[in-house]
Amino acid sequence: MFSLTVRDRMMIAHSLPDPFFGPAQQLHGATFVVEATLHADDVDSHGVVADIGALAGGLREVLAGLDYRNLDEVPELAGVVTTTEVLARFVADGLAERVSGGAFGADTGHLRTVEVLLRESDVAWASYRRDLPEPA
Amino acid sequence: MFSLTVRDRMMIAHSLPDPFFGPAQQLHGATFVVEATLHADDVDSHGVVADIGALAGGLREVLAGLDYRNLDEVPELAGVVTTTEVLARFVADGLAERVSGGAFGADTGHLRTVEVLLRESDVAWASYRRDLPEPA
Amino acid sequence: MFSLTVRDRMMIAHSLPDPFFGPAQQLHGATFVVEATLHADDVDSHGVVADIGALAGGLREVLAGLDYRNLDEVPELAGVVTTTEVLARFVADGLAERVSGGAFGADTGHLRTVEVLLRESDVAWASYRRDLPEPA
Amino acid sequence: MFSLTVRDRMMIAHSLPDPFFGPAQQLHGATFVVEATLHADDVDSHGVVADIGALAGGLREVLAGLDYRNLDEVPELAGVVTTTEVLARFVADGLAERVSGGAFGADTGHLRTVEVLLRESDVAWASYRRDLPEPA
Amino acid sequence: MFSLTVRDRMMIAHSLPDPFFGPAQQLHGATFVVEATLHADDVDSHGVVADIGALAGGLREVLAGLDYRNLDEVPELAGVVTTTEVLARFVADGLAERVSGGAFGADTGHLRTVEVLLRESDVAWASYRRDLPEPA
Amino acid sequence: MFSLTVRDRMMIAHSLPDPFFGPAQQLHGATFVVEATLHADDVDSHGVVADIGALAGGLREVLAGLDYRNLDEVPELAGVVTTTEVLARFVADGLAERVSGGAFGADTGHLRTVEVLLRESDVAWASYRRDLPEPA
Repeated sequence: MFSLTVRDRMMIAHSLPDPFFGPAQQLHGATFVVEATLHADDVDSHGVVADIGALAGGLREVLAGLDYRNLDEVPELAGVVTTTEVLARFVADGLAERVSGGAFGADTGHLRTVEVLLRESDVAWASYRRDLPEPA
Repeated sequence: MFSLTVRDRMMIAHSLPDPFFGPAQQLHGATFVVEATLHADDVDSHGVVADIGALAGGLREVLAGLDYRNLDEVPELAGVVTTTEVLARFVADGLAERVSGGAFGADTGHLRTVEVLLRESDVAWASYRRDLPEPA
Repeated sequence: MFSLTVRDRMMIAHSLPDPFFGPAQQLHGATFVVEATLHADDVDSHGVVADIGALAGGLREVLAGLDYRNLDEVPELAGVVTTTEVLARFVADGLAERVSGGAFGADTGHLRTVEVLLRESDVAWASYRRDLPEPA
Repeated sequence: MFSLTVRDRMMIAHSLPDPFFGPAQQLHGATFVVEATLHADDVDSHGVVADIGALAGGLREVLAGLDYRNLDEVPELAGVVTTTEVLARFVADGLAERVSGGAFGADTGHLRTVEVLLRESDVAWASYRRDLPEPA
Repeated sequence: MFSLTVRDRMMIAHSLPDPFFGPAQQLHGATFVVEATLHADDVDSHGVVADIGALAGGLREVLAGLDYRNLDEVPELAGVVTTTEVLARFVADGLAERVSGGAFGADTGHLRTVEVLLRESDVAWASYRRDLPEPA
Repeated sequence: MFSLTVRDRMMIAHSLPDPFFGPAQQLHGATFVVEATLHADDVDSHGVVADIGALAGGLREVLAGLDYRNLDEVPELAGVVTTTEVLARFVADGLAERVSGGAFGADTGHLRTVEVLLRESDVAWASYRRDLPEPA
């Protein structure tokens, strides 16, 4: 099993409107250092899991919709409690869509899962890992 | 699959009384930077793997019994060779007990495993991962 | 010359209302990983720059006024453009006040400067260093 | 499941002669920070996954054939496109051979897989994980 | 005294043709993680040491002439032994030229020095710090 | 001004027998990740601050007297309260002696100071910086 990971980051404001979250119910913010990983059964014909530029570019596209924003006002996240876990899934789903949509080329049959890890500080992080759809 | 991780640390003395360990047979010590992770099939009703405060607090409780101690004289570890691997299991078991004991609330059916990674330096670390018991 | 550093962190929202800042004019946020350092000519009678607990506690007190807040609404920062540099100075000034106020005991004549470094991400940080007042 | 990891590094030149790689077709280089991990069902009779000295030594042996070299001229890599993924496999295979060859002693029945992660920078890395052969 | 730092990276091949360097006489390579810092007496009218985008952009411009190259064949470095220290000076000089040339605007009278730190691995780095010219 | 830094580590036990230190009065331990830096006015005739192998080797020699030891029983430290600050000075003094003693060759007139930083955990560290003697 192979993996390929790239790191990027986003700086967002949000609140977690549920008494469960204590002081994080207030409007505050976070820098999320984001590590996006593709796992594959094998390398492709170029000897890689994926084009690292495509992975970095795809991740940037997904983050661009969130970066420098107040997530409480992002329409795609309306009604969503934007915990680190939930944001990890949102980013992973965005990358999975780009794999299906061809952003990584047609030669993606070896890819198995995508995992997104969000570091909210030096002492706390969360991740989400999901299968990639079979190529059509 | 989701995960949530928090980091803490402990500063301990110990010796490894087995010729296998060479100079580490002598009384020496370590700072263990400890990363405790819960893995879950899904997020709970709050959109998280677990209350991050409960995870950090539970980890601190387990470490408090070891921190600033000479492990050679800790009764719970009598007769135990306190390698990094064995300490990782000790901490993971302590967290698993706290999950079973209700420290993370009643809504823990989505939790699958706990993993504890102990960094003994910038160039060496070990981990232990175990299943969490089914909720009663 | 000796130094002692402790690390803590805060998660804040803010905006930088000046066209100079481009997308950071919008309400967004940051995790600031904060490293507070005291520099001293010599160690004190205990062989340290300062009580590390006093330094960590003093830093936490200063950060507690900002953590989990929207800085645009913090009265002490009214009218202040809360850049990373300016926040570093705010935290350093708060620590300097605590040194003068006795939070580090009376034996502080060896202390020379305080420096606060704020990491806003894995790829960008800023710092401020200032003299400590002579003990009375 | 237990794991044990050690970190080492190598500084190499290479080129990736395939238009797919854009500017990396040119002769350039990398520091690979290498993290080698053994996974095991249980600890051995000494309470460890493996002798950490044997793991660090085995890793150094494998890297010594590559360190301070131009990989385009290393005979063992003739005809190989030395992507990070492919180099991770090369190092993992070298470690697996050493396990089979007895470098970790005879008591290796608890070992399951070896994983090698190569960090090519602070923002990109790749890994390869493979089974270890059953002991004879 | 304030500082502002950004981090970038470059991946280069080179050789150090002097018996002093042992195995590094051979053609090999490195990833240099580069941290460029500006020091200033005060913040400017925007409350910053410098436009962080201008600093990141200026650093990228300087590194672009080296990244994915064999430094032994870069004309600007002909006859230069490209040690980490010498490369740190080369990058710092490139940034200083850009400050003088107006890339950071006209309001740079508060800037004092530029420092460039090059990490060649997780266990070794070097830096160069120089004065910035007085604004004309 | 140039600098060159190498990183190593040591794993020690010790106690701090002074009520000032609270729980650290007990026998406990630490991994100290050690960063040793030489500062120089200029590079030498090889284009470096110092032979990086000599610096790494000198640091290892100094640490070898402490590594895997109980510092309470190390004769050279008898009567010394081995705080992080004091240990940083001990290591720096050991390196300064080696510079004076010729371990870095005769061409050391450009060297100005040595600084040793000891990280006792991911959230706390201390350093000591001292002048190097003028070459005879």
